[in-house]
Amino acid sequence: MNVLNDLVGYKNLKIYQNTDMFKFSLDSVLLPNFVTISARTKKILDIGCGNAPISLILTTKTKAHITAVEIQKEVCELAKKTVEYNKLENQITVINDDINNLYKKLESDVYDVIICNPPYFKVNSNSKLNEKEYKVIARHELSLNLENLFKISRKLLKNNGVIAIVHRPERLVEIIEIMKKNNIEPKKIQFVYPKKNIDANILLIEGRKKGKPGLKILPPIYVHEESGEYTQNIKKYFE
Amino acid sequence: MNVLNDLVGYKNLKIYQNTDMFKFSLDSVLLPNFVTISARTKKILDIGCGNAPISLILTTKTKAHITAVEIQKEVCELAKKTVEYNKLENQITVINDDINNLYKKLESDVYDVIICNPPYFKVNSNSKLNEKEYKVIARHELSLNLENLFKISRKLLKNNGVIAIVHRPERLVEIIEIMKKNNIEPKKIQFVYPKKNIDANILLIEGRKKGKPGLKILPPIYVHEESGEYTQNIKKYFE
Repeated sequence: MNVLNDLVGYKNLKIYQNTDMFKFSLDSVLLPNFVTISARTKKILDIGCGNAPISLILTTKTKAHITAVEIQKEVCELAKKTVEYNKLENQITVINDDINNLYKKLESDVYDVIICNPPYFKVNSNSKLNEKEYKVIARHELSLNLENLFKISRKLLKNNGVIAIVHRPERLVEIIEIMKKNNIEPKKIQFVYPKKNIDANILLIEGRKKGKPGLKILPPIYVHEESGEYTQNIKKYFE
Repeated sequence: MNVLNDLVGYKNLKIYQNTDMFKFSLDSVLLPNFVTISARTKKILDIGCGNAPISLILTTKTKAHITAVEIQKEVCELAKKTVEYNKLENQITVINDDINNLYKKLESDVYDVIICNPPYFKVNSNSKLNEKEYKVIARHELSLNLENLFKISRKLLKNNGVIAIVHRPERLVEIIEIMKKNNIEPKKIQFVYPKKNIDANILLIEGRKKGKPGLKILPPIYVHEESGEYTQNIKKYFE
């Protein structure tokens, strides 16, 4: 069932969600608040936009034009309805296509920022692919894997343009290797911890096309207090 | 001037220091408390041991034999005196040699653990090499660079043996690349922050020779409270 919800933490923005698909997630809030946006940011590409929470949040930070791409038709319809409802058609263009094909038609070397909340899981013989198709595609590297994501980003980004993704810390080594192979220099990383004294479970990483070496590790983000409630840092996004 | 000091935080251990050289540092305490030591750890190599603070702390955690190597003769004398004073000659063997030569004489594929607090800075035309020689060698990659450290480690470590180093977060990308090139899989990382809301300034990283991929990002370590005093985490090592 499609429902129109408040984009929690962002007054005046509403988002269409399908209760059978997935809820608005922490990843979708952390990533647009992590990526480097400047006054010079003119063109943004949101790869695998889902129902467009990231693009929506970016509109509170920049006037740059956002191209939001989603492979799944039904999910993409939600993104389009959301953009229309918020009267953001002039800033966000939603495209229903597979980025693996679409990128050949997009102009090269023009994007200032690419942002992506990609599928987290490799597909292997243990993968549980009997979930609903929405979730399978969003969670498993069937339609988009890291190799392709960074190959595509290398082509589309301006020199010094940035790509920021959210992923699992377990895959940091692989992500760094693939970025370097594509001439994208990792420039900042932030780890998110469920609470104190536990290993990180979310990785935010940004790379710069043809950037100079030199990495910053930003202060950690904790999601929950010892008591279980959200930390102040997270509350500001969700309340 | 050579002086005999308490190894702060470790009752019953004393360490010879030269007041013209360098003081016992936080790095030297964090690294032996980070590295993975198990009941099966039998042989440890401490590369660039200085006056041997790391080896000394390791003796409180394991009965494994430790080979401690230091290129600088005067510094190495302090390490030897320290080992003798603490009656640890049976557990720690101090060798005054350049690991770049010595490793060819050491047995291959036998070390369970290699530990190193290497020079942090690349040598380039801006390097301030007019400091005292002790400091130049300990701080700049004149005698030991990362490429050689991991090449040597690959040769000396057992399969599944670990190497742990302390370094600067800025060089994480390069460290991961060199580890991977040498078939050493990064397995755990911990970042140290001077205090809250500031970027990390110390990196602890451990890799496993021919290890399986999969990285853990341990909880962050903060050094100072907002008030400026040491955090509990650090006090336990220094008080």
